Amino acid sequence: MRYLMTFSYDGTNFEGYQIQPGLRTIQGCLEKALTFINQKQETKVIASGRTDKGVHAMNQKAHFDLQVEITLEKLKRALNSNLPEDIHIKSVEKVDEEFHARYMVKEKEYRYYLNLGEYNPLERNYIFQCCHSLNVEKMKDAITYFLGTHDFRAFVTENKEKENCVRTIHDARIEIDDKNHMVIIFKGTGFLKYQVRNMVGLLIRIGEEKKEISLVLKMLEDKKRDESTPRAPSCGLYLMDVIY
Amino acid sequence: MRYLMTFSYDGTNFEGYQIQPGLRTIQGCLEKALTFINQKQETKVIASGRTDKGVHAMNQKAHFDLQVEITLEKLKRALNSNLPEDIHIKSVEKVDEEFHARYMVKEKEYRYYLNLGEYNPLERNYIFQCCHSLNVEKMKDAITYFLGTHDFRAFVTENKEKENCVRTIHDARIEIDDKNHMVIIFKGTGFLKYQVRNMVGLLIRIGEEKKEISLVLKMLEDKKRDESTPRAPSCGLYLMDVIY
Repeated sequence: MRYLMTFSYDGTNFEGYQIQPGLRTIQGCLEKALTFINQKQETKVIASGRTDKGVHAMNQKAHFDLQVEITLEKLKRALNSNLPEDIHIKSVEKVDEEFHARYMVKEKEYRYYLNLGEYNPLERNYIFQCCHSLNVEKMKDAITYFLGTHDFRAFVTENKEKENCVRTIHDARIEIDDKNHMVIIFKGTGFLKYQVRNMVGLLIRIGEEKKEISLVLKMLEDKKRDESTPRAPSCGLYLMDVIY
Repeated sequence: MRYLMTFSYDGTNFEGYQIQPGLRTIQGCLEKALTFINQKQETKVIASGRTDKGVHAMNQKAHFDLQVEITLEKLKRALNSNLPEDIHIKSVEKVDEEFHARYMVKEKEYRYYLNLGEYNPLERNYIFQCCHSLNVEKMKDAITYFLGTHDFRAFVTENKEKENCVRTIHDARIEIDDKNHMVIIFKGTGFLKYQVRNMVGLLIRIGEEKKEISLVLKMLEDKKRDESTPRAPSCGLYLMDVIY
């Protein structure tokens, strides 16, 4: 039987999603718990995609196959009781044997949170403590250039020359709440490694009036990275949803 | 010169407010930073009161004396650059030589946060993950019995027979937000060690319909602890404000 699970995690104390020998990873914890439940048969977990070290998830999704017979309710409970307190399984459902959590993704939503007000030690691992005002109108203007289908090569940090970097962004917008927190929302067919944090990094620079709005268009056209714009820190980034 | 500072901290990774040899405490970090700023002369910090291990503060206040000449702006900056990222000095002001941060407290506000919805790993150190519904009307009814001047001996965990446990609570109320979070607010002349967490523990039991509302009155009258009601966990408690 193939199952799809929806789960949340606090990325702070993990070395990222992907399993790595000797390191504390989300995939490592999930596979350990599932292997135990699956009568000690090694069980692989295929997520919608990885998240980097320090990045959080509200609704990450992953599939896995089990040989044991177990109700969904018991499976959820068994998983949660075998997982550390910084990962939580929200739901488990049965899916088709052909279902694939990575290949069948239709849309993903990421959100990036910033605090524009005074430094708050209680938020430091969950909201990027930007702690100065930004020109929100300029940022709202700039973010619209990300909408649509583009080659996002300029927003990928690693050497991706051989990879297809064309992605489509359906929704890209900025909201401010009454606590001086900014949230930057991206929905799209998929995102490359570091893409959201690099886009946010540029938006912050534009909000600081250190970069021009036109640089977004230029980078998308030239497909060249801007080494002078830092990637936004991982702590503000959340994988919010995955749609199949 | 005597100074009063207002500061916030994330209590998660401290062994409580009060200095203890060899342990990471908030007072320990503050005195270390101030001693460094005060040209290595040992500098004591007197707070409005202690908070226990795991308890947070949004606006804790403390006074200290400095011999060096320094502007308030520079003092704040020097403190923050010598403190760990889980403590933040929000403001520093000059006060009278007679000012005392503990003895002159007029009112304190504490808040206790609970999540009544599904377990959220991202909130686990900041909001008590109660994760089941509570009878809010019963709790709102019960909390009114704490209002006024009472001997709170029954809500103090340690042996306090010789201590004066009479305190006055001016405001005690419960709010629910749209995210299924409950906040329990107490304002009063002062609170005894574990008093808020013991009062909240009883309120939770009443919300679970495992205890009667009348038990609040009975405990205040009899001044006897109820060993069957657990103290609410420290992670949900915040010292919100101190008024002089």
